[in-house]
Amino acid sequence: MADLPTPPHQPLSPQLGADGRLLHLLSTEGLPRETITHILDTAKSFLEVSDRDVKKVPLLRGKSVFNLFFENSTRTRTTFEIAAKRLSADVINLDVSRSSTAKGETLLDTIDNLCSMHADMFVVRHATSGAPFLIAEHLARTGRHDIRVVNAGDGRHAHPTQGLLDMYTIRHYKGDFAGLTVAIVGDILHSRVARSDIHALRALGCGEIRAIGPKTLLPAHLEAQGVKVFHNLEDGLRDCDVVIMLRLQNERMDGALLPSASEYFKRFGLTPAKLKLAKPDAIVMHPGPMNRGIEIDSAVADGPQAVILNQVTFGIAVRMAVMSILAGN
Amino acid sequence: MADLPTPPHQPLSPQLGADGRLLHLLSTEGLPRETITHILDTAKSFLEVSDRDVKKVPLLRGKSVFNLFFENSTRTRTTFEIAAKRLSADVINLDVSRSSTAKGETLLDTIDNLCSMHADMFVVRHATSGAPFLIAEHLARTGRHDIRVVNAGDGRHAHPTQGLLDMYTIRHYKGDFAGLTVAIVGDILHSRVARSDIHALRALGCGEIRAIGPKTLLPAHLEAQGVKVFHNLEDGLRDCDVVIMLRLQNERMDGALLPSASEYFKRFGLTPAKLKLAKPDAIVMHPGPMNRGIEIDSAVADGPQAVILNQVTFGIAVRMAVMSILAGN
Amino acid sequence: MADLPTPPHQPLSPQLGADGRLLHLLSTEGLPRETITHILDTAKSFLEVSDRDVKKVPLLRGKSVFNLFFENSTRTRTTFEIAAKRLSADVINLDVSRSSTAKGETLLDTIDNLCSMHADMFVVRHATSGAPFLIAEHLARTGRHDIRVVNAGDGRHAHPTQGLLDMYTIRHYKGDFAGLTVAIVGDILHSRVARSDIHALRALGCGEIRAIGPKTLLPAHLEAQGVKVFHNLEDGLRDCDVVIMLRLQNERMDGALLPSASEYFKRFGLTPAKLKLAKPDAIVMHPGPMNRGIEIDSAVADGPQAVILNQVTFGIAVRMAVMSILAGN
Repeated sequence: MADLPTPPHQPLSPQLGADGRLLHLLSTEGLPRETITHILDTAKSFLEVSDRDVKKVPLLRGKSVFNLFFENSTRTRTTFEIAAKRLSADVINLDVSRSSTAKGETLLDTIDNLCSMHADMFVVRHATSGAPFLIAEHLARTGRHDIRVVNAGDGRHAHPTQGLLDMYTIRHYKGDFAGLTVAIVGDILHSRVARSDIHALRALGCGEIRAIGPKTLLPAHLEAQGVKVFHNLEDGLRDCDVVIMLRLQNERMDGALLPSASEYFKRFGLTPAKLKLAKPDAIVMHPGPMNRGIEIDSAVADGPQAVILNQVTFGIAVRMAVMSILAGN
Repeated sequence: MADLPTPPHQPLSPQLGADGRLLHLLSTEGLPRETITHILDTAKSFLEVSDRDVKKVPLLRGKSVFNLFFENSTRTRTTFEIAAKRLSADVINLDVSRSSTAKGETLLDTIDNLCSMHADMFVVRHATSGAPFLIAEHLARTGRHDIRVVNAGDGRHAHPTQGLLDMYTIRHYKGDFAGLTVAIVGDILHSRVARSDIHALRALGCGEIRAIGPKTLLPAHLEAQGVKVFHNLEDGLRDCDVVIMLRLQNERMDGALLPSASEYFKRFGLTPAKLKLAKPDAIVMHPGPMNRGIEIDSAVADGPQAVILNQVTFGIAVRMAVMSILAGN
Repeated sequence: MADLPTPPHQPLSPQLGADGRLLHLLSTEGLPRETITHILDTAKSFLEVSDRDVKKVPLLRGKSVFNLFFENSTRTRTTFEIAAKRLSADVINLDVSRSSTAKGETLLDTIDNLCSMHADMFVVRHATSGAPFLIAEHLARTGRHDIRVVNAGDGRHAHPTQGLLDMYTIRHYKGDFAGLTVAIVGDILHSRVARSDIHALRALGCGEIRAIGPKTLLPAHLEAQGVKVFHNLEDGLRDCDVVIMLRLQNERMDGALLPSASEYFKRFGLTPAKLKLAKPDAIVMHPGPMNRGIEIDSAVADGPQAVILNQVTFGIAVRMAVMSILAGN
């Protein structure tokens, strides 16, 4: 996993137009509270009938959504495909790891070509942090102001639709964010989900944000972002309203960082006993896929406080909302 | 190919509801004659105009069908995809061998997640016998009574839609089953098709069912199921109405069982001369893909008695019927 | 890359019916001028509103288009998928390299099976020259007169939709072909694009066709086809109206033929300085994917005379036109 030389954390993100309109969804960083709330409200309208059913609506009829996955992720690709199809879009899945890039074509040549194929929206997953920013900037520079980019996860940088569906889930169960204590537990260093959650929680005025994990798996400067740091799970969980467990991303770690699974579970695995330290009505979230018995005990994962599968359902509605808003609806 | 510890041959299959309604299609075993006949009649209605054309109908409009192939099979996946699209469903193809399961997620966690993505029906192909049963039981246990499972082939256990399309084919050409002699030839031991055919033929009251093959490729207890066993092709073919040739499944055999191709062809390959021993109007079937020159001579495969390609066409209609009935139409 | 024993260059191509109607699109060789012009005019009608937007039209509603890619090509497969979806067809993507052919099934058995699955049109990419011809002949021989074949590139033989979109591009920018000088530059020996371009240019009465490249990368007998041969880029470019740069197909060459990239660029790479030798309003084309710095300098690829991305857009419309005409519209 390489990082692009230019850090994408620019003060003026290309995701918002001069009038504040959402042009792309690249990061939850810099998203105004009103924009987030608008996305969540729109998502709610797609789930109106029930919490499981999403309506099929013609909002993207005639539009072409390109799922551009430079990094394989069947799960995320599928949620976007379903969301786009429920909006009646034409969906083109591109497994780019096996395509022209293998023939030596550059990323931006690939984008230029796909733009010329009547693309209306790119959903981009890339192993390199900043790749979707690069694409959005390229579209702006080349005058393609009608094509939208949705970041579906870039390196360890951002995964904004996951961040937004987490916000939807918290709002659904807890209402207002002001009085809430939200703990994010585990491998925060490698987690684009944690980063996207923290930015969104701050924008929504969350009462207290906590990061819990071993020193080797927490990034620097969390306190500067207003996050309270805990290296002890029990301390961190006390009186929380929301517990977000993260996947131990074995595939993103080199050997030096990787803790032993049983040791990790003993210290940071969420068990029913430890969960009791949180508020009695605390909810437990996880972005999936879960490592049962490593970061989370099955009794918690399948227990009454877990809302992990509801997150998935809300995720379809949130992705529909993002695509629908980007398409100008 | 591993078998699950619990044998799926339970007296009360989860595929039928208390009222006898078809909830899932997991096996032809235990399917009542009326259910089979209803499926075949429904399939016929989709082929009404001609024997080649299947109508496009809106019976599954707004429904999401997930093709969940844990074992690669382009051919079977394609027939289900076509059937679902002709019913106007949204089809999501999941190549699960390359997905989250690779990240250590369990089968049932994968299913839980897909259920939360607005799935209405799973079409499941799995190398392990019993996997679709496990999924159906899990759906029942977790209260997801509105999601349907279609077994598209599990290990060496069952391939019910193939069994049903074979029944459609026989009924189309031969009418009533009572007076018929049907021979199944070849590698019955490894064949989920043979198993599904035998159960369906018995349910439909087939006059005589024969199994023809070398001892090493026939399972035990066939006689107990009312099947006549032959180790000599000539004897077995005599006066048959229907000959179902099976593919020599090299990919499912270890070296000890595997006969030499030329030796096998000499003893069990269907040639025009041997076919003459069957009734003059006997039909020849094969589930495909064929090994020409191993289990079947090209002169038979392409000859006037072969209905192998018609099976494929009928298969689309039968799969449409199964999905349509499962969806409540 | 093997070539089939029978050369596909028969005087009576199976792509035209007795009445001159287009039955398949296999090659630009033998296509009458009127047929080409009809395709280009039809393509134009799909781009009517603007040069970027292609309309969504119901011309193939209810039809099934099978993308049958025996050789992986995400780019070409995608353009056909988009074109078919904008015609409202059901599109089935088959990655045949991973399917039944791996189980030993023959090409024509695969085709027979897919025909039986309600296929209306095959879009075929194959590494072997002549494969789409073989399929079209097989369809004719077996009486399947209602199924169409589109060659999406066969070995080093033909890539007719690329040839036609190149013609569309030239006509769009230059109008009539009679007075034009068109130069094709580079690895013509391995290029199915060059072959398809030359046949189409001749049919349309192009004023002068030039082939420019090193001796090792030019086929014999070009002069006999009315093509002027140049081994020096500067000489060949002089006063051209159209310059078609070809990709150096490293993947199709064995070591002996392969020139060093820097040496090749020095002699045959198109730079702004060399382009000045052509007419001031000359256009630069490339079928993609480009090797920047090998056959083309970025300053040219991204410069004002390049129409490379417009080719891609026109390609969608041309493929829509071909499929629409083949479907009988």
